[in-house]
Amino acid sequence: MSTMNPLAPVPRGTPAVVLLSGGLDSATVLAMATQAGYAVNALTFRYGQRHGVEIARATALAAHWKVARHVVADIDLRLFGGSALTADIAVPKHDDVSAIGAGIPVTYVPARNTIFLSFALAWAETLDAQDICIGVNALDYSGYPDCRPEYIAAFERMANLATKAGVEGRTQLRIRTPLMQMTKADIIRAGRALGVDYAMTVSCYDPAADGTACARCDACLLRAKGFAEADAR
Amino acid sequence: MSTMNPLAPVPRGTPAVVLLSGGLDSATVLAMATQAGYAVNALTFRYGQRHGVEIARATALAAHWKVARHVVADIDLRLFGGSALTADIAVPKHDDVSAIGAGIPVTYVPARNTIFLSFALAWAETLDAQDICIGVNALDYSGYPDCRPEYIAAFERMANLATKAGVEGRTQLRIRTPLMQMTKADIIRAGRALGVDYAMTVSCYDPAADGTACARCDACLLRAKGFAEADAR
Repeated sequence: MSTMNPLAPVPRGTPAVVLLSGGLDSATVLAMATQAGYAVNALTFRYGQRHGVEIARATALAAHWKVARHVVADIDLRLFGGSALTADIAVPKHDDVSAIGAGIPVTYVPARNTIFLSFALAWAETLDAQDICIGVNALDYSGYPDCRPEYIAAFERMANLATKAGVEGRTQLRIRTPLMQMTKADIIRAGRALGVDYAMTVSCYDPAADGTACARCDACLLRAKGFAEADAR
Repeated sequence: MSTMNPLAPVPRGTPAVVLLSGGLDSATVLAMATQAGYAVNALTFRYGQRHGVEIARATALAAHWKVARHVVADIDLRLFGGSALTADIAVPKHDDVSAIGAGIPVTYVPARNTIFLSFALAWAETLDAQDICIGVNALDYSGYPDCRPEYIAAFERMANLATKAGVEGRTQLRIRTPLMQMTKADIIRAGRALGVDYAMTVSCYDPAADGTACARCDACLLRAKGFAEADAR
């Protein structure tokens, strides 16, 4: 099983902050962190997203995986707008995954991962945790700049200068990205091996009021492609 | 007058995000940015700080300097605690500025500037602004890791990888720190030359309910020292 987990085992109870959106990717990271031995401090954001249903899914996942603590932080990114996920801009829909455009889509939320990781950094520092886990992925993804490995490396470097631990040379903060080089199908296979129930997760950028996925946004199409490929072998 | 302003002039109306706490330093940065020609988008945080009076001061300063827009963002850093400014930890008091200890004090708020700058980055990106101005200072300061030049440089580098503009090579984000190498007395002299009314500002970490400064916390002592030195010549 451990060969399916890019997170190396740690002494049981080692604290980590895990960013948990309620989506497929972060649910997999939660399972990986738990299996590796971390005491998971799960962090979810209510940021004015139109797909607020993911917060309920995150809460259910946190309970299911018996995290040490789950915090839902309220930050209203609608203050700034600029994204189809937080402002009155339509979420693009396609008939097929091949129709997903090149470039950065309007669902990109300016500086979202930077804000999320900054809060995670604050919590990690108060927990004296070295590890922050985030489910970013550079293969089957939406083209967001703040999912790229070079961005994560720059954040990690900054984080180690930002904090008390970094100044004192005491602890090295690490931004752990176990999914970075995995395809969506690989992520699903790894998650299933760890016992993830993907029915508990939601990926849709634009779900109906009852939480039903739209099936035609980038996130739905990438998810469907991943399951099709995972099931094909 | 411009020799007192480390911010070089820009075409009038160039957008910038200015972090505005309501304190002495950020009030001076606001004046510098305004005088340099920026259209100022001022950003203040209600983060659960015990010195909430600074939000009212920031609002008054924003109105006085006729900023383009003032946003007060609500983020509750009490979720994580770990600081005398946000948790139930006493703010240290001293009789004299020479008694301020070495090292990082308990008033340090974990990752605070990283969180503040991350929100500023989100706003800058939606405004298509290149410049984020922050009143950090590496001379007369409280020893916080996230006020050091090497931290700011690392944040800037990360920011340019985090955003759409950076990926497209279109805009270079700059974190402007006009006060970085100034003494508190220099800051006050520069601010006075630009017309800053420091009676509108508050520096105290632990003010009374009516906003009266305690006169004995690090911030009060550094402020008093700055005024004494500025008035001495």
